[in-house]
Amino acid sequence: MVGKAEASRVRSRAASMLKRAGIALTVGEREAIEVADFGLSDLSHTGLELVVYVNTDRYCAKELVLFPGQTCPEHWHPPVGGKPGKMETFRCRWGIVYLYVPGKPAKKPKATPPRGREKAYTVWHEIVLKPGSQYTIPPNTLHWFQAGPKGAVVSEFSSTSHDESDYFQDRDIRRIPVIK
Amino acid sequence: MVGKAEASRVRSRAASMLKRAGIALTVGEREAIEVADFGLSDLSHTGLELVVYVNTDRYCAKELVLFPGQTCPEHWHPPVGGKPGKMETFRCRWGIVYLYVPGKPAKKPKATPPRGREKAYTVWHEIVLKPGSQYTIPPNTLHWFQAGPKGAVVSEFSSTSHDESDYFQDRDIRRIPVIK
Repeated sequence: MVGKAEASRVRSRAASMLKRAGIALTVGEREAIEVADFGLSDLSHTGLELVVYVNTDRYCAKELVLFPGQTCPEHWHPPVGGKPGKMETFRCRWGIVYLYVPGKPAKKPKATPPRGREKAYTVWHEIVLKPGSQYTIPPNTLHWFQAGPKGAVVSEFSSTSHDESDYFQDRDIRRIPVIK
Repeated sequence: MVGKAEASRVRSRAASMLKRAGIALTVGEREAIEVADFGLSDLSHTGLELVVYVNTDRYCAKELVLFPGQTCPEHWHPPVGGKPGKMETFRCRWGIVYLYVPGKPAKKPKATPPRGREKAYTVWHEIVLKPGSQYTIPPNTLHWFQAGPKGAVVSEFSSTSHDESDYFQDRDIRRIPVIK
């Protein structure tokens, strides 16, 4: 897990990107940005920075920040508590995101999995999200995504979020705890 | 109901405000901005402009635009199809919004109901939303809101939206149809 000092630097960088994307945060939100290193301690390749606006028993909304080339690794959302798995809509606000889901694989994918972890990336149908474009991931569907060369800011609208229940293709990954 | 020409002007104005707030839309979304005049044909006082990003059977996300002083009239979201009424979170992205809910009334409220319709405004507990601040309205809870002097852009995150089922305090109001 990355240390507190690095987490603090990462949080500042994410806050700057949100500001550049025109997204206003409160001071408290800026200080509480979640840093998810997925237990790999390699944030420049695998990681995600999150602001959770609201997560009720009915819906959830977050802002996701990805640094240039940063990857949210392949995972899926299984059923939780008798309800279908999480359904989520990614809406790109700033930058570019390459999103991968099951389907016809891209011949020349624009994203490259983090080195040494290629085996944990199995779906290759490519969706390119630019500002204003969005895509909805059904429950139980494998997906992963990587930011383009300038990074990205993405709004996530979804059903209730249970991050601790997510399944990752890479068995070395631990989604929880996040660095706070 | 306002005519097509006015609706088109209103749509352009809303699109400009969204752009100023840093929110990217596709061309299709810009052209499809919903104009809700609530059947009163008086958009400069009562009305709302909406971009519905997604509305599934589990969650909904919209962008709301309010022109300076424009009011979304008092209403509540009743249970629909055996599920509790809509729960929604308003997050101010740009401008100022004065939001009113049940509770201790403001002594000097910052908003003024549209003239001649004062009787349909009964809750006066005031919440002031500035960029980065947000508030969650429980189901079945009366609420109304008005933009400050420069207008406002507000993200709405919620459970499934059934606008046609909303109840309005003002019996002259018709939420549906919107002008498309």
